[in-house]
Amino acid sequence: MTKIEEIKLEDLKPKKFIEQKINEISSIIGSGLAINALSGGVDSSAVTMLGHKALGEKLKTYFIDNGLMRQDEPGYVVTLFKKLGVHVEILDAKKEFFNALKGLTDPEEKREAITQTFYKNVFGQLVKKSGAKFLLQGTIYTDVEETIAGIKRQHNILEQIGINTEESFGYKVIEPLIQLRKTGVREVAKALGLPEKVYKRPPFPGPALVARVIGEVTPERVETVRKATKIVEEELSDTKAFQYLAILHEDRVTGIRDGKRDFGLQIEVRCWESKDALKGTPTRLPYDTLDKLAQRLTTEVAGVVSVTYNITKKPPSTIEAV
Amino acid sequence: MTKIEEIKLEDLKPKKFIEQKINEISSIIGSGLAINALSGGVDSSAVTMLGHKALGEKLKTYFIDNGLMRQDEPGYVVTLFKKLGVHVEILDAKKEFFNALKGLTDPEEKREAITQTFYKNVFGQLVKKSGAKFLLQGTIYTDVEETIAGIKRQHNILEQIGINTEESFGYKVIEPLIQLRKTGVREVAKALGLPEKVYKRPPFPGPALVARVIGEVTPERVETVRKATKIVEEELSDTKAFQYLAILHEDRVTGIRDGKRDFGLQIEVRCWESKDALKGTPTRLPYDTLDKLAQRLTTEVAGVVSVTYNITKKPPSTIEAV
Repeated sequence: MTKIEEIKLEDLKPKKFIEQKINEISSIIGSGLAINALSGGVDSSAVTMLGHKALGEKLKTYFIDNGLMRQDEPGYVVTLFKKLGVHVEILDAKKEFFNALKGLTDPEEKREAITQTFYKNVFGQLVKKSGAKFLLQGTIYTDVEETIAGIKRQHNILEQIGINTEESFGYKVIEPLIQLRKTGVREVAKALGLPEKVYKRPPFPGPALVARVIGEVTPERVETVRKATKIVEEELSDTKAFQYLAILHEDRVTGIRDGKRDFGLQIEVRCWESKDALKGTPTRLPYDTLDKLAQRLTTEVAGVVSVTYNITKKPPSTIEAV
Repeated sequence: MTKIEEIKLEDLKPKKFIEQKINEISSIIGSGLAINALSGGVDSSAVTMLGHKALGEKLKTYFIDNGLMRQDEPGYVVTLFKKLGVHVEILDAKKEFFNALKGLTDPEEKREAITQTFYKNVFGQLVKKSGAKFLLQGTIYTDVEETIAGIKRQHNILEQIGINTEESFGYKVIEPLIQLRKTGVREVAKALGLPEKVYKRPPFPGPALVARVIGEVTPERVETVRKATKIVEEELSDTKAFQYLAILHEDRVTGIRDGKRDFGLQIEVRCWESKDALKGTPTRLPYDTLDKLAQRLTTEVAGVVSVTYNITKKPPSTIEAV
């Protein structure tokens, strides 16, 4: 296990960092082929641009449509990168992911199912077809820390926990952002010429909406939390908060619809003030905003009768629930 | 099914109401014996005082210790009524209730188990021993409405849904408060000479802490929500809110303890502004209060890593979750 040195925000010189990483990537890969998966988040967007600048056509970028992303995400990502001169290919892997998640309720088992499906099934096949021996990936420093501490299993931490990806999956992983935290990545993304809506985009978890569904992950339950996520992002995007999210609970609670009992769904909203995701404080949202959130979530998302707002600091909470 | 006429708050004359009810109770019961169960809430406290004034020694008052009440409740209730000249006998029925609740997760089944245990097993035996043919009970108008509307099954609604208690359980139920809503009952309780901490006490659900536990009700889970309830009542008693409560979720969420992952418990806090429990709005608690609640609940209640505050209006929410 290699020891990774953090580059603190005050020591980061984005232009120089980019230049250095472009050189590193070029020299490691040489005349070989690399592929990467772009999710649309700031980490994988920055890696895509770094890889594109270093490798040009020798990098194949894929958007893996796992059925677990935000609403309209595949089209949004492809269009955005087309404008930046990067071709992104969409791979429909919804069936593979939902099959792997069937019946699982334990958060660690769900994360493991995502990891295995992503690296072994979906990416393994892609790599074989493409002949690429290198995978570029947007792992950041916080992911490493949390996985080593045993808090959460990040789906992109493999070498750090002693998994040799060349042996297990047939390719080598390169992680150019691994010494940075989120704020550092945003600086780099900005310097790479990515638009503000990308470099300021709130973090989205590796296992995507799986991290926002308590209990079993089915297409229907993902659709519920996807609609809730859209509403929460619309209402809270002006807050400048570090991150905001909607969680679908498995617990049902009593509600009233048209004067009758409705044993319905509960959505939990979280909105965080944080610098680095290591510590966090719930944003002190105005009650008018909370009211609007509850009103929209209970009228626009089928089955929802109850909405809560999380008021716990991290620690002892974590940013995501699963 | 008898149609019940509501007495609106503006039409209520507490002294006259009390006089009338005392006469009614005396004339129905005559030289017979009556018993009642006192929970310590405003409804059953008012009924106990009405019955005591009407019947004196002909009324036997019991505190059924079902193991589902607030912390230190049995001793508190007995001491309080002793000062008012009313003898209250404690009946330990914890085993009966927990046995009846074992394995049940559906809210309606849990409420039904409480009803059956209360009326058939525990009260049936008491009545047989005492020879009483009458049960005085603190049903109020909102209970009737909600049960008939099919929103929730209140444990004290029997005649209204067509259950003949004389046939089923061997005694007749008298409900002197059934035409009043909560605010009316508080006026009557005050006029009966009950202390302010009783007539201003926030409502507590019929099925007690069972209504605050999502999923199976075990002695351990009740103990968790009991501790949480105590903290919430301590922190919110100055708010003058209509009702405030803590709910233990069955869903577990990821948290961090001592730098390690802790897949722990979540407590949901609700605090209501309401006149009659028919409609309700979440109290706009200061964030400093929410912070303090989260901090106390995650440090003083074992296993709790996450706290939420409910932000939904009633409807579509209900006051309680179960």
